[in-house]
Amino acid sequence: MTLLLSLVSAFFLFISSSLCHPLDPLTPQEIHTVQLSIQTSHSSSSPNITFHYVDVDEPEKHHVLKWSSSNRHHAPFPTRRAKAVVRVGGKTHELIVDLITGSIVSDQVYKGYGYPPFTFEEFFKAIRLSLKHPSFQNSILRRGLDLSEVSCLPLTVGWFGEAAKRRVVKVTCFYRNGTSNIWARPIQGISLLVDVEENRVLSYSDRPREPLPKAEGTDFQRQRPSPVSCSGNNNKITITGNSVKWASWEFHVAFNARAGHIISTASVFGRRVLYRGHVSETFVPYMDPTQEWYDRTFMDVGEFGFGRSASSLVPGMDCPAGAVYLDGHMAGTDGSAQMVPRAICIFELYTGNVAWRHTEVGVPGKVITSGEAEVNLVVRMVATVGNYDYILDWEFKKSGSIKVGVSLTGVLEMKATKYRNSEEIRRDIMYGNLVAENLVGNYHDHFITYYLDMDIDGEANSVVKSELRRKRTKAGERSRRKSYWTAVKETVKREGKGRFEVGSKAVDIYITNPNMKTKIGNEVSYRLISGKAAVSLLADDDYPQRRAAYTKYQVWVTRYNRSERWAGGFYADRSRGDDGLAVWSRRNLGIVNTDLVVWYTLGFHHTPIQEDFPVMPTLYDYFELRPANFFDSNPLLQS
Amino acid sequence: MTLLLSLVSAFFLFISSSLCHPLDPLTPQEIHTVQLSIQTSHSSSSPNITFHYVDVDEPEKHHVLKWSSSNRHHAPFPTRRAKAVVRVGGKTHELIVDLITGSIVSDQVYKGYGYPPFTFEEFFKAIRLSLKHPSFQNSILRRGLDLSEVSCLPLTVGWFGEAAKRRVVKVTCFYRNGTSNIWARPIQGISLLVDVEENRVLSYSDRPREPLPKAEGTDFQRQRPSPVSCSGNNNKITITGNSVKWASWEFHVAFNARAGHIISTASVFGRRVLYRGHVSETFVPYMDPTQEWYDRTFMDVGEFGFGRSASSLVPGMDCPAGAVYLDGHMAGTDGSAQMVPRAICIFELYTGNVAWRHTEVGVPGKVITSGEAEVNLVVRMVATVGNYDYILDWEFKKSGSIKVGVSLTGVLEMKATKYRNSEEIRRDIMYGNLVAENLVGNYHDHFITYYLDMDIDGEANSVVKSELRRKRTKAGERSRRKSYWTAVKETVKREGKGRFEVGSKAVDIYITNPNMKTKIGNEVSYRLISGKAAVSLLADDDYPQRRAAYTKYQVWVTRYNRSERWAGGFYADRSRGDDGLAVWSRRNLGIVNTDLVVWYTLGFHHTPIQEDFPVMPTLYDYFELRPANFFDSNPLLQS
Repeated sequence: MTLLLSLVSAFFLFISSSLCHPLDPLTPQEIHTVQLSIQTSHSSSSPNITFHYVDVDEPEKHHVLKWSSSNRHHAPFPTRRAKAVVRVGGKTHELIVDLITGSIVSDQVYKGYGYPPFTFEEFFKAIRLSLKHPSFQNSILRRGLDLSEVSCLPLTVGWFGEAAKRRVVKVTCFYRNGTSNIWARPIQGISLLVDVEENRVLSYSDRPREPLPKAEGTDFQRQRPSPVSCSGNNNKITITGNSVKWASWEFHVAFNARAGHIISTASVFGRRVLYRGHVSETFVPYMDPTQEWYDRTFMDVGEFGFGRSASSLVPGMDCPAGAVYLDGHMAGTDGSAQMVPRAICIFELYTGNVAWRHTEVGVPGKVITSGEAEVNLVVRMVATVGNYDYILDWEFKKSGSIKVGVSLTGVLEMKATKYRNSEEIRRDIMYGNLVAENLVGNYHDHFITYYLDMDIDGEANSVVKSELRRKRTKAGERSRRKSYWTAVKETVKREGKGRFEVGSKAVDIYITNPNMKTKIGNEVSYRLISGKAAVSLLADDDYPQRRAAYTKYQVWVTRYNRSERWAGGFYADRSRGDDGLAVWSRRNLGIVNTDLVVWYTLGFHHTPIQEDFPVMPTLYDYFELRPANFFDSNPLLQS
Repeated sequence: MTLLLSLVSAFFLFISSSLCHPLDPLTPQEIHTVQLSIQTSHSSSSPNITFHYVDVDEPEKHHVLKWSSSNRHHAPFPTRRAKAVVRVGGKTHELIVDLITGSIVSDQVYKGYGYPPFTFEEFFKAIRLSLKHPSFQNSILRRGLDLSEVSCLPLTVGWFGEAAKRRVVKVTCFYRNGTSNIWARPIQGISLLVDVEENRVLSYSDRPREPLPKAEGTDFQRQRPSPVSCSGNNNKITITGNSVKWASWEFHVAFNARAGHIISTASVFGRRVLYRGHVSETFVPYMDPTQEWYDRTFMDVGEFGFGRSASSLVPGMDCPAGAVYLDGHMAGTDGSAQMVPRAICIFELYTGNVAWRHTEVGVPGKVITSGEAEVNLVVRMVATVGNYDYILDWEFKKSGSIKVGVSLTGVLEMKATKYRNSEEIRRDIMYGNLVAENLVGNYHDHFITYYLDMDIDGEANSVVKSELRRKRTKAGERSRRKSYWTAVKETVKREGKGRFEVGSKAVDIYITNPNMKTKIGNEVSYRLISGKAAVSLLADDDYPQRRAAYTKYQVWVTRYNRSERWAGGFYADRSRGDDGLAVWSRRNLGIVNTDLVVWYTLGFHHTPIQEDFPVMPTLYDYFELRPANFFDSNPLLQS
């Protein structure tokens, strides 16, 4: 639920001849082609077609690689097709559209569990229906509130064992009271269940139990740019279409309605590192089992989409002066092309640190200080999913590292309470902390899971687990030491062993290419440097956990499969956990010297505090893919 | 072992009337006073007095607090004394000198285990003795090497159960071969044990077993500043003497020969947070139990000193344009004042991120994006201890957070080997990885332990452990959820329970002031956000681990005691582990609502790779002290 009002129809702005990479996102013209083809073929059966997913039908990886490794003029450009998921007459259709001819290549009805993502229009319709609902209007009047000051939010409802037969949202409302902070005054007790396809309120409940929080001083409207004027040498960033060259890096960046931004075919010094990387799913379960909160177990990417939630970036505030911006295009509810201006920014960043340094005093008569200030390239987007804002960074280092960072900010999802002071709370279980008078910030988690199709010097890769283990010295070693540690390396054979916890043991994870050696015979590899430890604490048999079972480990490795990109399954809304990473991993395929995908989850357990009110200071975590015997020596000295 | 050659005698540059804070470091004049007093009192007994520690004798905390909380003109300035540790006639003297009168207040001989830190001159003398040693010269000639191309390094020898009766170093040498990288060609097999007080070589060994590595392409001499011109509004940083004001922060920064830089009396919005914070000790054990390497178990801060190792910062490379620099002063071997130019830099940093943001689409007819670019204040120094460079940052955020970061870079400590290619290695145990032809980068750790005397709104603090625990919903709750987590909070009663692992469980640690509440009744506190999990893997009964027993936990909490600042004990050289954090913690004192010290260790297990050669790309980790119900709401909106 984001920049609807700033979305601009942008038909015919580009023509398909401007394509320069097989993984380029759909152009507005191509989106239009998809819309026309599907409308033409289905309008006779139903006038109401809603478009839930329109994307490039990802070409076969070997076609893309053949094209990109060739001289770019000789190898054939892979077939350009679109994949669309639409709802027609209460059914989910999966279509493939040929973008050259405009013809429908295939059209199948999906019959499994779960629904495709909601669209903006569906959310807005649910809000309009709620605001017009007579019982709702009565409740608002009864509370002495002004209807024109009410904002509502449709929430996905998860799955809790029922036989889900409708696409529904639960609408919950807030009182703005003249402010621009809609979140600070939840109108506790009111909720409406809305069928977004039948356009009707299925049920209404009003259990007024808690006062409306006064919530004073909640406005925070302002934009404060950096007082530091930071101008990178942006002329060094070469952007051709969606292809980016900077320092020794080359990669492709695409805006995507579901994933947000996607990095593809990333190579450093002409050597392949990452075929594709993007956010695969998020899981945000709230820790309040009561009637109005138990079902807040969001999977934002699959239920709505990070790209759809993209904020137009604010120059100087979201990205520094001198940043380059890319617009994003996606299909609206009716299939027409919509634009998000400045959806992605790309900028050079002086991190404030050094990339390397050394002061040497051991050469007689000299003090030699050498080093280099660290300047990275950042590719950023911001997804604002209702109250929360996620700042999503891909940071490329001249050292060959890729640092993937997420910052959490925005506004807490809060609950009204009768308590005005923590000291009044005696026996009540709060499921959160009092963050302001009459407002509880409920406990919750954020799990942001990344899809990382690693191709270290080619597709055939392995994963090596290096465990640091204590050894005791033996009498024969005649050492005065009693112990030391050594790295015990083991190639992980199967998917079932390719699941790792973070932080509990001294274990390093390497993605290696067993067919490639450095000049001195080390296997080329990248090391995964993990972030903070945080896995889901929910019980395995709990419904939300069954749907997001992949959050039990922070690292998974699976064999590459073109159809497996969404850790929570493609049809995440009301899913039952029968698709997704945890299921795929159970096949236990071999993962030695083959095409691999690494899945990494950045996790945050959030126990809200007063500082998070009315808007939260950024909370950051990252992981890093760092070359380890990938180069023959420090690549920073080669640039 | 650092900038000796750039050290400048700087007597009489300042006079003591320039003092403006009781924790100001000793001025050159004051250092001179200490030197004169001690020389006068001891020169009759021995002409050779060496100065190993000369520092402010830390005034009583309550005196400092009384002074700093008063109008600064009314409360008395605490008594100004110096503490010195000198060696005279083979004995360690601890002296207190009155800086006003120049008289010696006390003079005691230390009779416990362990020795004070080495001095520069002692290290250089050991090198000179080695280079002149006839057997050594013979060995070099026999190898066909040119003596003028040899650089030597004195290493501390640790303690392995022997009855240590001398202050010794073990000298190991390298062949520069015309390059400025002294580390790449270890002359394996040669070592000399040197008594630094008797000025003689105690033993010499030459076991030529490994070839001299060719080590081509090892030079990396250059300084590359940031191509990004970043000019902060440095006029916003107000520095008076050693006191710094920036945004809502006020603190004191001091250069210190042992700790490096010390942050004192830090307060935000006029409220106290941190009384003193600094690096307390480091522990760098190598994981090679063989004869020449087993004793490399360095405690750099106690054995030598991070301030003594300070590099003069290079403007534009080490710190951005516009940074403000402070020089450092310390006592040399003979007690005279020496200066490190540009020992500390202070600068505003635009981090590239936002401090907070939100895009709101829920207000009818509007899209409102608010936020603020993140600009922090960084206080930095660099300690170069032989081959390694540590970049040590204190970063202050407008949100009230203090982020403490360490970057590791510099050159690996390496070992010669006959192997030129990893594939040749079959049955040999290597204790490291081949990083270049004939060069092994040995496995090792870096533990950097911080002393954090927290004073959250006053001295009387507690530590609250908040464990996130899974709960199963009960039948009575009539919830469709089966589980959730909640925060189970517990005040840590005694030091014995004030030891925490990082990453193994979902535990948050808060330092609270149980006597202070926010307006809505929450206990004011700061949360410790830990870095990556890494504790020492050595056996508890191993000698180096006995000396650095505090590295078994990353977080410790003890009751404040003025004399307890050095986690590995004050006399770290050849210490036996009978002093230091692990010993103090065993007292098991109560730590509820009293003055507390938190100890945090940033740990790195380092398995070297080829990219670390010839100089290592920066490896970074940090921890953060983040306000948690310290403020009534987000303080970023108040500035």
